[in-house]
Amino acid sequence: MPPRGKSTTVADALPAQWRRGVYETIQRRRDVRIFRPDPIPAAALARILGAAHHAPSVGFSQPWNFILIRNLALRTRIQAHVDKERLRAAAGFSGERRTQYLSFKLEGVLDAPLNICVTCDRTRFGPSVLGRHTMIDTDLYSTCAAIQNLWLAARAEGIGVGWVSILRPAWLRRTLEIPPKAVVVAYLCVGYAKSFPRRPMLETAGWLPRMSLVETVFAEKWGQPCDGALARILERASGKSHAESEDNVDGRGRAASKPDRTRGGPDTGQPRSGGRIA
Amino acid sequence: MPPRGKSTTVADALPAQWRRGVYETIQRRRDVRIFRPDPIPAAALARILGAAHHAPSVGFSQPWNFILIRNLALRTRIQAHVDKERLRAAAGFSGERRTQYLSFKLEGVLDAPLNICVTCDRTRFGPSVLGRHTMIDTDLYSTCAAIQNLWLAARAEGIGVGWVSILRPAWLRRTLEIPPKAVVVAYLCVGYAKSFPRRPMLETAGWLPRMSLVETVFAEKWGQPCDGALARILERASGKSHAESEDNVDGRGRAASKPDRTRGGPDTGQPRSGGRIA
Repeated sequence: MPPRGKSTTVADALPAQWRRGVYETIQRRRDVRIFRPDPIPAAALARILGAAHHAPSVGFSQPWNFILIRNLALRTRIQAHVDKERLRAAAGFSGERRTQYLSFKLEGVLDAPLNICVTCDRTRFGPSVLGRHTMIDTDLYSTCAAIQNLWLAARAEGIGVGWVSILRPAWLRRTLEIPPKAVVVAYLCVGYAKSFPRRPMLETAGWLPRMSLVETVFAEKWGQPCDGALARILERASGKSHAESEDNVDGRGRAASKPDRTRGGPDTGQPRSGGRIA
Repeated sequence: MPPRGKSTTVADALPAQWRRGVYETIQRRRDVRIFRPDPIPAAALARILGAAHHAPSVGFSQPWNFILIRNLALRTRIQAHVDKERLRAAAGFSGERRTQYLSFKLEGVLDAPLNICVTCDRTRFGPSVLGRHTMIDTDLYSTCAAIQNLWLAARAEGIGVGWVSILRPAWLRRTLEIPPKAVVVAYLCVGYAKSFPRRPMLETAGWLPRMSLVETVFAEKWGQPCDGALARILERASGKSHAESEDNVDGRGRAASKPDRTRGGPDTGQPRSGGRIA
């Protein structure tokens, strides 16, 4: 049990520069698809794996594993599989949307020097895991928290991560000899990034808009907008967040002169115009 | 598309203090169950919600919503539901393990001034979402990344988060009027923490051990240990990680004199002794 009386640990905000580091890293993290071939030093890789391993997990079950893939022949087979699934997925879009989809570079399986398959062992420390009786998928959710830790630590190191989901988990399971007890949660391409663009590629390309923050927040029940001071701040944040994150995007405080985004609709909590702005 | 030629954005490691902030925050984040009643200022809440909203999402679909719950009558009903499910879950453990389970304080629904229910709208920007054709649950995974961003930002602010999974999603859906298209992913208790203990409560209580990092990492395929420089560093990290994180746990560099943990078994990638050290 944590101490119940006088706490032995000071529970305060972290120092300003550390706090800023967290926010800046979150803002500057990107789904990276273009990599430099430079290898990742073992010490840096150990740090980002350590960050992943310090994620929260349901009942402290730590259900994750990280399969590091460097072998070129193996990655070439995986790339061929992704190419095939990419064409298959293109059938889900029509007209210009399909053309645009096919124009995107969506992975860096071969460009990145390292791929990581992240799995979730659904039997770990089981069968009874504290907190999983009512929400059985919390082990998968824990694994995703580990992936986000890894992603942020990598960004802080200048290392890009791209999450490739255009592949069939069953195929990858066979290929990497993953046993039935484990689920393939993510396939990541990892390497020094050529750049961390100011905005997500899919936003810049006009594939989908950034939702305004206030649209995503409800009060007391689904669909009820929040109000008061929080609503006003979220409204402002929604207009400003890009400009703010661009102000310092190169780490040297170089200001960008982008105008604020204007909000596109009422606060219904729903995406505007069907969510497509092509 | 991101720039393909000379990059316009410097893709470097972030400044040392920011980078340290990321790692320190990840190490010091805890699943908090004991809260101070102080309200969370709107500006701080907006920052942590903004951090969540800047998570990666499959096809930039941003499927998350955040239902802020403060109403005391509503939280009292939720607490009663959690109490009931906690007793039901206790039946999944036997003997001393059950007694220990029932001794844990597992939530702070009423102690924390704010609860947040995080949902995933499975229809957002759909039906065709880039990257979801082969891995349909990547929208849930994106929502978990948002939760982890929120959790880290909160920690940096001195705000504790506790993820309560001992409740039935279907019950919560009815109670919060969540439509069928959205999935309840998490129910979070949020407030200034009484303390951020040095280790996870379930580790301190001897419920489960921290796995050694090297056990979680494979090379090229499931079950094959990694080797070389990385393996050596991971071995050392596994022994040292607690001591390291304790060295600076109060933010003032106060050193702890804990001995290194010794590793308990061979690198099979499996938890030791069935994973229970009660």
